[in-house]
Amino acid sequence: MDEKRTRLPKLKQSPSFDDIERVGMAIKSYIHQTPIVSSKSLDEIVGCRVFFKCETLQKGGAFKIRGALSAALSLTDEELKKGIVTHSSGNHAQGVALTAKILNTSAYIVMPHNSSSVKMRATEEYGANITMCEPNIESRVATAKKLQEKKDLSFISPYNDYHVIAGQGTIALEFLKKMDDLNFLLAPVSGGGLLAGTSIIAKEISKRIEVIGVEPNKADDAYRSFYSKKLKSNKTTSTICDALRGNLGDKTFPIILDNVDEIITVKEKNIIKAMRLIWERLNLVCEPSSAVPLAAIIENKKYFKNKKVGIILTGANLNLQELPF
Amino acid sequence: MDEKRTRLPKLKQSPSFDDIERVGMAIKSYIHQTPIVSSKSLDEIVGCRVFFKCETLQKGGAFKIRGALSAALSLTDEELKKGIVTHSSGNHAQGVALTAKILNTSAYIVMPHNSSSVKMRATEEYGANITMCEPNIESRVATAKKLQEKKDLSFISPYNDYHVIAGQGTIALEFLKKMDDLNFLLAPVSGGGLLAGTSIIAKEISKRIEVIGVEPNKADDAYRSFYSKKLKSNKTTSTICDALRGNLGDKTFPIILDNVDEIITVKEKNIIKAMRLIWERLNLVCEPSSAVPLAAIIENKKYFKNKKVGIILTGANLNLQELPF
Repeated sequence: MDEKRTRLPKLKQSPSFDDIERVGMAIKSYIHQTPIVSSKSLDEIVGCRVFFKCETLQKGGAFKIRGALSAALSLTDEELKKGIVTHSSGNHAQGVALTAKILNTSAYIVMPHNSSSVKMRATEEYGANITMCEPNIESRVATAKKLQEKKDLSFISPYNDYHVIAGQGTIALEFLKKMDDLNFLLAPVSGGGLLAGTSIIAKEISKRIEVIGVEPNKADDAYRSFYSKKLKSNKTTSTICDALRGNLGDKTFPIILDNVDEIITVKEKNIIKAMRLIWERLNLVCEPSSAVPLAAIIENKKYFKNKKVGIILTGANLNLQELPF
Repeated sequence: MDEKRTRLPKLKQSPSFDDIERVGMAIKSYIHQTPIVSSKSLDEIVGCRVFFKCETLQKGGAFKIRGALSAALSLTDEELKKGIVTHSSGNHAQGVALTAKILNTSAYIVMPHNSSSVKMRATEEYGANITMCEPNIESRVATAKKLQEKKDLSFISPYNDYHVIAGQGTIALEFLKKMDDLNFLLAPVSGGGLLAGTSIIAKEISKRIEVIGVEPNKADDAYRSFYSKKLKSNKTTSTICDALRGNLGDKTFPIILDNVDEIITVKEKNIIKAMRLIWERLNLVCEPSSAVPLAAIIENKKYFKNKKVGIILTGANLNLQELPF
């Protein structure tokens, strides 16, 4: 266990700006301060000024390590020593595995047996113990629960946890400390941890920044939940965005309802178009799920015309042999 | 023409540290301060700590805009107004085209008709006038010369020019101002503008930084020139690295002889291996020519073992449909 770690307080309610700032300080030395990049030629194509906060260059290739570290640092020494457990098919698995490695404890990850081989290999390389399960939520939850009880582990939720929400909020904190004059701040939404944390920060820093969550229209639970003000589940998840097939949780949804201005859904073909623009114009590798905010601009050019837009580029874990273009 | 531009003095001899610092100040507002990134998992694979200065995220997708801006800013107002000309099959074409766009003048670019379609389209998009020529050096030089005389243009050399050398040196300036404790600084070498500028800066900042130029062993003019102390030409250029097929020039070679510690040549298979590592572990798009310094580490692991190594990642202009892996 990392003896010098900061012990963060346990959060019993939605994190405040100060809570997120405290998490930012605590995790700073463990993570990369990711760069913000832009491209004039991309701006000309989409008709507005876009700034990308590159969590694709974060440790583990995605933003997920922030939330995992935040949750792990709020455990007692005794809890942390015993180890942490989660279920995930993707980036959260790597985030938890890396967190355990950094804090010198054990990670147990339940992964569906059809998870991407790249993500499974990476999780293994970070030293985590992988347990396979059936590719459905019941099997994932049951397998993780069994492990948790057997080894007395602490469960790290991928999103429905105040510490995780606070961890993901540190991205917007870094972003807006450098650029507080954005008109819009866009983030993908799946379980809503990232969007919830982002919205808390944005609304505190400036009421004028419009916060928008974006999701594939083939996994549109957030859109339907947001506008009906009732928590709903995905009816389909047949999107190329493997990281955006989850549903909002009971902790993330109220925060999103309170702070987010809009949810936009986007078409698959525009996600692929946006992804290609990021590869070709920004020279950054990203996974399809990262491209949904740019797809929202492509689908709504008039709305964003000449505005200053911030996008959180969330992750880059994909198989180079399976590009959709 | 940009009325507020800094007019840089004409350089009659090899640029000094102060000359390069002056260029850095003059071009700063036109370019991106590119980030420095690293990856622990990549470090574990290669056995040393590697820091990449990402000129792949520079305007135009490569470092070339620095040298072109430096040369253009040293022209008189009258010269700059008439326009600039160069011949290039690749990144330098885009650097000169972008420079003209930024400084509000005209660019005339001579490109071999078999140039990469991606690079040709990008050059056109930046508003340059393209003239096709035969794919050999005689045709390139003659076509550019004709244009230069007809329109009274200023020629911007891709590398064999003190202003260009000074411009490329600004990368090492930014890099080493942030990290002056590197053991090694590696850059690809073709015409030698980047390596010459890099070596002037590195030797001034710390004598302890070993500066190494790296090139494909299928285009090894710099290696043979350096160790024989006589300027030699490539015998073959059949490398995947389309940006590294040029020969050292009479202005770059003496600077390299004076300041560079070593030239290393690398095998094609290791260039591809290194390129793939950069894509998969750093999540950065880069062209093969950018990967040669990392290939040098892969081929000489013992030499670099546990050291702190800086690499200039030079460019990312390639066709996504033609990946070598």
